[in-house]
Amino acid sequence: MLDLYTDATPNGLKISIALEELGLTYNVHKGLNNEANVSPEYTVMNPNQKIPLLKDDDIIVSESGAILYYLANKHNALLPTSLTQRTKVMEMLMLQMSGLGPNFGQLLVWGGAWNNEYPVATQRYAKEVNRLLKVLNTLLKGNDYFAGEEYSIADIAFFPWVRMAYIHPIGEMLATNECKNLTAWYERIGQRDTVKQGLLIPEANPPEEQMKIFVNAVVGLGHLHD
Amino acid sequence: MLDLYTDATPNGLKISIALEELGLTYNVHKGLNNEANVSPEYTVMNPNQKIPLLKDDDIIVSESGAILYYLANKHNALLPTSLTQRTKVMEMLMLQMSGLGPNFGQLLVWGGAWNNEYPVATQRYAKEVNRLLKVLNTLLKGNDYFAGEEYSIADIAFFPWVRMAYIHPIGEMLATNECKNLTAWYERIGQRDTVKQGLLIPEANPPEEQMKIFVNAVVGLGHLHD
Repeated sequence: MLDLYTDATPNGLKISIALEELGLTYNVHKGLNNEANVSPEYTVMNPNQKIPLLKDDDIIVSESGAILYYLANKHNALLPTSLTQRTKVMEMLMLQMSGLGPNFGQLLVWGGAWNNEYPVATQRYAKEVNRLLKVLNTLLKGNDYFAGEEYSIADIAFFPWVRMAYIHPIGEMLATNECKNLTAWYERIGQRDTVKQGLLIPEANPPEEQMKIFVNAVVGLGHLHD
Repeated sequence: MLDLYTDATPNGLKISIALEELGLTYNVHKGLNNEANVSPEYTVMNPNQKIPLLKDDDIIVSESGAILYYLANKHNALLPTSLTQRTKVMEMLMLQMSGLGPNFGQLLVWGGAWNNEYPVATQRYAKEVNRLLKVLNTLLKGNDYFAGEEYSIADIAFFPWVRMAYIHPIGEMLATNECKNLTAWYERIGQRDTVKQGLLIPEANPPEEQMKIFVNAVVGLGHLHD
């Protein structure tokens, strides 16, 4: 039995999208808003105390990128078999995990959770996210998907983060209108029924709680002054 | 023939350490300090314009985590064969790529390159890096290596970043003295001849240039005010 510990954050949504794509049945545990994530039981499963986490009987995996890797390998899907093509997927997955995710996370924290108290910081991260969005736009030139012709875990990893640029108010700082390939990709991925379904799992949080949950779930920096 | 585009930064040093461990011969291209990384030729290889990058004849791989994955798979080393154990390595690799690396990078930029102009920012990232170091210390309890009993690409990924906590002046903000398992691991890894050799490739930069190179190579945020 699969147990998914998650929340309605970009990293959490990656996993429900992947599980829907693979057609798997799973239990959903939504818990960060009541701090179940830092229960002693959860901390044993993930000392880093973050979501998402997947429990597949006695196999426990944290880190969204590693969960995607595990699911793709177990089900022989969403990841090509040749080393060259697999490496391209991993390269894109790493760019999401180390580049777009952390920098977009900082932008949302400085510009959102911390109320843009230090505009110079917000602007630094907006600049880097804009640079990365343009890099992604270049990488998608002539390609339907990030690793070429096949939909893969790299697309699933990028989608919920890129989506923030299109649906979150902070997107007004971002030059998505200059990123035609990225916008076409975003619309292409968003049309998949499994993506639409995955975005609903778990249910969204009330807007007034969402940023706190996001900070707890993803970024780990806490409040600006404490 | 292997060509490594790199610099003496934590992400760059991961790859020379791995190549030394695998006993491979490679050409070293050290270029960020003369901005060769943003040449048109380099940008074709990596639109993200970062080091490290590995060129293995016609296979080109960027993102240090993906390069490690590629090398481990090609040479069937530093990565276990069972999916459960491989996933553990990938989980730790992702934690380095998405957690310790980006947050330590921010700490070095706010506290170092940007001269601690905003102490509240420096302290935020110091807090998160300290939290992560304690998580790593917990993960190493009873384990010689991050994925258990075997030295892997996860250890190689963590080593040059953890090392910064022990050798960089910013380490004074970090509670490594509370991290006995991590310190023992750091010393264990540092004693390997291949690690000692990898740390010398490429040669270190003059101290007055190192932070600029680090910011260019790793973080991509540029100068605070521009």
